[in-house]
Amino acid sequence: MKGNATTLQRIDAGACMSDAVIHHQTLYYTSVTADAALNEDITGQTRNALAAMDAMLARCNTDKRRLVDATIFLPDAADFAAMNEVWDNWVGAGSVPVRCTVQGGLMNPHYKIEIEIVAALS
Amino acid sequence: MKGNATTLQRIDAGACMSDAVIHHQTLYYTSVTADAALNEDITGQTRNALAAMDAMLARCNTDKRRLVDATIFLPDAADFAAMNEVWDNWVGAGSVPVRCTVQGGLMNPHYKIEIEIVAALS
Amino acid sequence: MKGNATTLQRIDAGACMSDAVIHHQTLYYTSVTADAALNEDITGQTRNALAAMDAMLARCNTDKRRLVDATIFLPDAADFAAMNEVWDNWVGAGSVPVRCTVQGGLMNPHYKIEIEIVAALS
Repeated sequence: MKGNATTLQRIDAGACMSDAVIHHQTLYYTSVTADAALNEDITGQTRNALAAMDAMLARCNTDKRRLVDATIFLPDAADFAAMNEVWDNWVGAGSVPVRCTVQGGLMNPHYKIEIEIVAALS
Repeated sequence: MKGNATTLQRIDAGACMSDAVIHHQTLYYTSVTADAALNEDITGQTRNALAAMDAMLARCNTDKRRLVDATIFLPDAADFAAMNEVWDNWVGAGSVPVRCTVQGGLMNPHYKIEIEIVAALS
Repeated sequence: MKGNATTLQRIDAGACMSDAVIHHQTLYYTSVTADAALNEDITGQTRNALAAMDAMLARCNTDKRRLVDATIFLPDAADFAAMNEVWDNWVGAGSVPVRCTVQGGLMNPHYKIEIEIVAALS
């Protein structure tokens, strides 16, 4: 890496991906449900993925009120309404990100939702 | 929010999402067709979504020549050529963003296109 | 463009899209396989798309250790394991980006993979 490179902060960097990366006071993160909740329905998986997001945002000294952008992938478009109900109760009115929801398959066949976010650090 | 937080600018923040968010002189926005154009074909919906994008960029004091990145979701890949024809006539040659087009279902069954963008502010 | 606008750097800007755009020391880029490798399987196409990425990162004076975020689209979810094998051998352990893989169709029916990235410049 060049001597003048800004430092990227990687959170839980593994062999093939990091859980989150911070660049220029901007957090990139993708949330799925924890393995323990893989058998839950869309309501449970959305709650679980958003709880994991809250935990990651807190680790990075920010919170959901600093979300900038969210792209939500749902394998089953019929899950949209139930996902929205959990999302709406979770997100803070007035401090909400741009959001785009797309029907697309996920790589673990048990996953019912994956949420890519960009967030600002506090 | 911490006292030293940079200010996020949210445009038309609703209960569950914002139309656009500005962070670090970077605009995040997702464009779909207006409700009034939901019955239009891909040509009409693409024109409509790009007109909405022009309007949002103008509100944020920037324009399409400052687009950085666009991800286009089409439920029907057969709409690609007709979408491209509208896009090519709209976008300014030489000031064009990175672009990735993916076939994926959208949450309103009438939507034929959704465009996620990142743009630089002027 | 306004007089005080920061300069966007566009790499290989064409009539409808750029190969890559740099904004605020951040590179946006989408990689697919080269036309010459369109008939290759997922292993060959992933290698080819990652080689193209290496070349683009080098042109921008950065490298794969500065990847921030990657969104991988696969038309066929059954290609996930073979794609991962190539990815894991390519990516530098410890310097890995956030990654989200989604099953979604691509606009060239021969494409087996498309990779959207955000990278930090050195």
